[in-house]
Amino acid sequence: MLDLCLLGCGGTMPLPDRFLTSLLVSYKGRRLLIDCGEGTQVSMKMENTGYKNIDAICFTHFHADHITGLPGVLLAIGNAGRTEPLALYGPKGLIEVIKGLTVITPFLPYELILKELPINEGASFQVGELFLSTLPVEHSLTCIAYHIEVKRGPVFLPDKAKDLEIPPYYWKYLQRGEEIEVENKRFLPEQVLGPPRKGLKLGYVTDARPSDALVDFLKDCHLLICEGMYGDDEKLPGAITYGHMLFSEAAHLAKKAGVHELWLTHFSPSMPDPENYLEIATDIFPNTKIGFDRKSEKLTFTP
Amino acid sequence: MLDLCLLGCGGTMPLPDRFLTSLLVSYKGRRLLIDCGEGTQVSMKMENTGYKNIDAICFTHFHADHITGLPGVLLAIGNAGRTEPLALYGPKGLIEVIKGLTVITPFLPYELILKELPINEGASFQVGELFLSTLPVEHSLTCIAYHIEVKRGPVFLPDKAKDLEIPPYYWKYLQRGEEIEVENKRFLPEQVLGPPRKGLKLGYVTDARPSDALVDFLKDCHLLICEGMYGDDEKLPGAITYGHMLFSEAAHLAKKAGVHELWLTHFSPSMPDPENYLEIATDIFPNTKIGFDRKSEKLTFTP
Repeated sequence: MLDLCLLGCGGTMPLPDRFLTSLLVSYKGRRLLIDCGEGTQVSMKMENTGYKNIDAICFTHFHADHITGLPGVLLAIGNAGRTEPLALYGPKGLIEVIKGLTVITPFLPYELILKELPINEGASFQVGELFLSTLPVEHSLTCIAYHIEVKRGPVFLPDKAKDLEIPPYYWKYLQRGEEIEVENKRFLPEQVLGPPRKGLKLGYVTDARPSDALVDFLKDCHLLICEGMYGDDEKLPGAITYGHMLFSEAAHLAKKAGVHELWLTHFSPSMPDPENYLEIATDIFPNTKIGFDRKSEKLTFTP
Repeated sequence: MLDLCLLGCGGTMPLPDRFLTSLLVSYKGRRLLIDCGEGTQVSMKMENTGYKNIDAICFTHFHADHITGLPGVLLAIGNAGRTEPLALYGPKGLIEVIKGLTVITPFLPYELILKELPINEGASFQVGELFLSTLPVEHSLTCIAYHIEVKRGPVFLPDKAKDLEIPPYYWKYLQRGEEIEVENKRFLPEQVLGPPRKGLKLGYVTDARPSDALVDFLKDCHLLICEGMYGDDEKLPGAITYGHMLFSEAAHLAKKAGVHELWLTHFSPSMPDPENYLEIATDIFPNTKIGFDRKSEKLTFTP
């Protein structure tokens, strides 16, 4: 299933027990990172995640707290023996930023493939079996939110296949959605498959102000990992100025989007104990959790 | 006096309890860093050193483990309110590397002054009241060692000043080494000052192979902070290939240079417990200590 590990939950500056922003997403043994703040490689070490199977690193934007850990992670991936290309995704500016940061990692044993994503129209792309989409968000720098989906095929109905007298050898093709012809008879997948089933959807939003477009974009996420830079509602002027969210705003966003669970992350270094403000969020959206470094979860398909 | 704090003692990759290479040197309230690996800003936070009074950052070379922490430290210095220029020193390549890394710190509230140091002939420069000198060393990349000296003026001898009938108001000028003329009589500093006194000398060597030139360069250091990438003597072939030192080589260097104390640092991530190899070094140079993150010392003038 979809394994998540919040490698770092700090915003702006790391704290002794709080690395900067990064999320590790694993599916069927392949991995991707979203953002890569200072300390990411250490947090991965602490979690024994390994480095070699990172197939992509996706950036929301290029503020330093989301990318300073990149050179170290790139070297760790190389030291782990990766030789397959690694894809880096992010908004416009990616190529210039990566060119700058990799001045200190000139001899990686694998190729970096840089993919600048279109902003206004959003982008959709695939990393292995993960389907990613982006949405532009309001921040003090060009910034995008992500959602990641795992598709789930419809259930295969063996009784229907038997009724149609399709030899079991051919079932796998129909199950994969392919038409087949057996002894001059044509069979279609929909003859032996059940109705569409809900896959998994993960939302990732940091840094951003809330918006109606985000509500639509995050609709029905199983889990939303969302910035909560400030717990205290009195910090609203700062949140507006710097393009961040209050706990209460993230909770309203989760509620409006009908997500199942909300994790808050990207905490201001001025807020060493975000738990103190949790109730502000749970009063609005009860299934809110406070993120912490290496908070992990396994998202599984619901029946 | 000269306050030292070894902010990070890791080489190549950080470990959960070991940040990458950095040393903080403080003298009379002003500070400088040598190297700035990933985690430097966190280690400073843990030690409550503050960021604003960092006047210079000196680099030995530009392998990532010595510089990945720079963008975070630059931002922390800015957030702390610094507006005075900050000087960055290092071997050739400094300008290109800093230009690359600062692509993610475009709006610092202070100026960066970049000073590429000559390599082969060494360099000498001053940061506040600290006198720094460099020496090229053998590593897999252009690299320099540093020593830092605090000069100590000769003692002032008031009895001699009284014998010469110099009014006390003028003593301070002589003490500072200036000639004076009082009522048509000329006085020279050497008439009222004692013999030269030994100042303080700190050596910093990482990454490097040992050499005779290093022995001369480090002569009579009070403290030598030196890389000990590998504890086990059987790692010599790797040390030669990658341009590093064994504990035993660092200890021989300390002994030959006649330093007072040796700290080992820049440990390979394959060596989680460098203490296990300490005896190899102390058998050669008894006053050897194993470095650890935030190991601190105050160097004081000896009588």
